[in-house]
Amino acid sequence: MATDSAWLAAAIALSRRTTGRTVPNPNVGCILIDSAGRVIGRGWTQPGGRPHAEAMALDEAGAAARGATAYVSLEPCAHESTRGPCCADLLIGAGVARVVIALTDPDPRTNGAGSARLRAAGIAVEAGLRADEARAAMAGFLTRQQHRRPAVTLKLAISLDGCIALADGTSQWITGAAARAHAHLERARHELILVGRGTIAADHPRLDVRLPGLADRAPRRCVLSQSGAAPEGWLAIERPEEIAGLPGDHLLIEGGAKTAAAFLEADLVDRLLLYRAPILIGGGKPCLTDIGLIDLTDAHGRWRLVDARTFAPDRLEVYERMRAG
Amino acid sequence: MATDSAWLAAAIALSRRTTGRTVPNPNVGCILIDSAGRVIGRGWTQPGGRPHAEAMALDEAGAAARGATAYVSLEPCAHESTRGPCCADLLIGAGVARVVIALTDPDPRTNGAGSARLRAAGIAVEAGLRADEARAAMAGFLTRQQHRRPAVTLKLAISLDGCIALADGTSQWITGAAARAHAHLERARHELILVGRGTIAADHPRLDVRLPGLADRAPRRCVLSQSGAAPEGWLAIERPEEIAGLPGDHLLIEGGAKTAAAFLEADLVDRLLLYRAPILIGGGKPCLTDIGLIDLTDAHGRWRLVDARTFAPDRLEVYERMRAG
Repeated sequence: MATDSAWLAAAIALSRRTTGRTVPNPNVGCILIDSAGRVIGRGWTQPGGRPHAEAMALDEAGAAARGATAYVSLEPCAHESTRGPCCADLLIGAGVARVVIALTDPDPRTNGAGSARLRAAGIAVEAGLRADEARAAMAGFLTRQQHRRPAVTLKLAISLDGCIALADGTSQWITGAAARAHAHLERARHELILVGRGTIAADHPRLDVRLPGLADRAPRRCVLSQSGAAPEGWLAIERPEEIAGLPGDHLLIEGGAKTAAAFLEADLVDRLLLYRAPILIGGGKPCLTDIGLIDLTDAHGRWRLVDARTFAPDRLEVYERMRAG
Repeated sequence: MATDSAWLAAAIALSRRTTGRTVPNPNVGCILIDSAGRVIGRGWTQPGGRPHAEAMALDEAGAAARGATAYVSLEPCAHESTRGPCCADLLIGAGVARVVIALTDPDPRTNGAGSARLRAAGIAVEAGLRADEARAAMAGFLTRQQHRRPAVTLKLAISLDGCIALADGTSQWITGAAARAHAHLERARHELILVGRGTIAADHPRLDVRLPGLADRAPRRCVLSQSGAAPEGWLAIERPEEIAGLPGDHLLIEGGAKTAAAFLEADLVDRLLLYRAPILIGGGKPCLTDIGLIDLTDAHGRWRLVDARTFAPDRLEVYERMRAG
C-alpha cells in the first residue's frame, strides 16, 4: 500500500497539469483514496481556476468518498466565492475521514482556516509533507501572493562557452530538435512570454507553441521596450519591474542578452532554464550583457541546481534563485 | 569470482597511477590472478617507464605466477631493450597460462608481435575487452604514437554564462576550493602545462601542484608566445603546432581565452575539462576568443560528454574530441 508521501506526490503531479492556466487560482492537485487503498477520485484545478481540484475529485468519487482520505497539494480553501462553495465544506459534506495537505495556503483568506474548519467537523488533518515540491509546482501563485508579480523563468540556449549565436548573429541552431521541443513545452506552461525590442527586430519571433495538440497554448506576448513601442497585439513594459501589472502568474523570458541581463540586474528571475549544446563557438555573442555585478563574491550563493536532463545531444539544467524566507 | 572484464578494469585502474610519468613508455597496468581467483601480483609502469607493469606484477607473484592469468591494459611488449627483457618473454618464463589484453599495442615494434610470441609459447591470449577504457587511460602514449604530439587537455573554469572573470579581470574565485583542488590533481597527471603570454603578465601563475604529498609533481611550464619570450626555466612555443616538440605526452592548457582559442582553432585539443560554478557574471570576460568558426553546423558533432562530477557547489564536465579513426 502506498504511503501518504507517495499519494501526495501523485496529487502534486496532477497539479502540474494546468500550470499557467488557473489564474487567479493556484493550480492544485487532489487524489482520493478509499480505506482499501484504491484511487476513487482525482482532480486538478481546471483552466480558468474552476472547478477546484477537490470538487473534481469528489465528483468522480461520488458516494465512495465517505470515509476516504483526501491528498491535496494545497490546503483546501475556506473562503466561499460567488463561483462556488469552499472546498473545506465540500470535503466535510462528502464525509471524507482524513485530509493530508502538502502546503498550507498563504492566501490570508484561508491560511490555516481551511484546516481548522475540517478539524472542527471531526476530520483528521495532517500537513507539511512534500511542502517544497508543492511550493515548486505552484510557484506562480505563490510568487504572486508573496511578491505581487508573476514567477519569472529565464530561458537560455547556449554553447558550452556561453554563446547564443555566432558573432554575426547566426543562432540556427545551437540546440537540437529535442531540446527545442522541450522549450516549446515550457512555453505552454506560461501565460506570458517576453522578449526585448532588439530580438523582435532581429528575429521576428512567433513565440508560439509548435507541438501537436498544444498550438492553442501560446502564451501572451510581451516586449520590454524603453520606448513603449510594441507590435500589434503585444503587451509592452518599459522596465522589468512593470511585470507586476501583467496578466498571468508565469512569465517566460526568451531573449536577448540585454533583456535577460535587465531582469537579472533587477533580481526578477526566479528560475533559469539552461539548454546547453555540446559545441564551442568562440568569440560569439554572449548570453548576457552586464548585470551590474561589481564583486565576484556577490555572484555566489544565488543559484541552486534543481534538475538536470538530457535531450541528446544537449543537456538542460534548471536552476532556482535561492531567496531568504 | 570476478569476470575477465572486472579484472581488466582493475588493471586499467592500476595503469592510471602513473599517468603523465612514464614517458617514453605507455602507462600500463597488470594484475595476476591464480586459478583460485586470488590476486597474486599487481603492477603498473613505474615513473620513468621502468620497470614495466608486467615485470612488477611477476616480481610480486614469484613462483605463484605459474599457471596464472595475466590481465594487462596493453599488449605485452615483444621488443627487447637495453633496459631489460621484453614482457612477453617475462610472462612466458614465469609460466603464465593465459593473458587477457585490453588493447593491442600500436607501437610498430610490438603491434601483434607480443600476442604472437605468447601464443607460440602455448599461452592462451585474448584481446579487445575494455579497449576504449584502456585507450582513454593511455591517451598520452597513443596520441604520441598516432599524431606525433602530446595529448592536449584544455581546462576552463567558468560561470554558467561562460565567463572566466569579471570585465575588469577579477577571477578569484569563480569555482570553489574542491574544484580547484581537483584541477591541481589534474596538473599532477600532466608532464607539461601551458599558458599564454598574457596570462603570465596578468596573473604570474605558479602552475604548481598545491596538494599534500604531490608538491613534487608540478608539470614543466610552457608559454605560447609569438615573440618566443619566456620566463626563466620555461619552455616556449610560438605556434600551437610546435607542441609536437615538447618533452612529454600530456599537455594541460590553462589559459587565457586567446591561448585556448588558438589551440581549438588548430584542432589540437583532445579533452576539455569544464569546471562550472553556479553563478552568473554577465558581460564578463568570455572563456574563448574567436576560434575561426564560420558555419554553426561545423561546431556540432565534435565533442562528447564522457564524465560529469560534482565538486559542490561546482560541476565538472569532461568532453572528448570525437575524431574519425
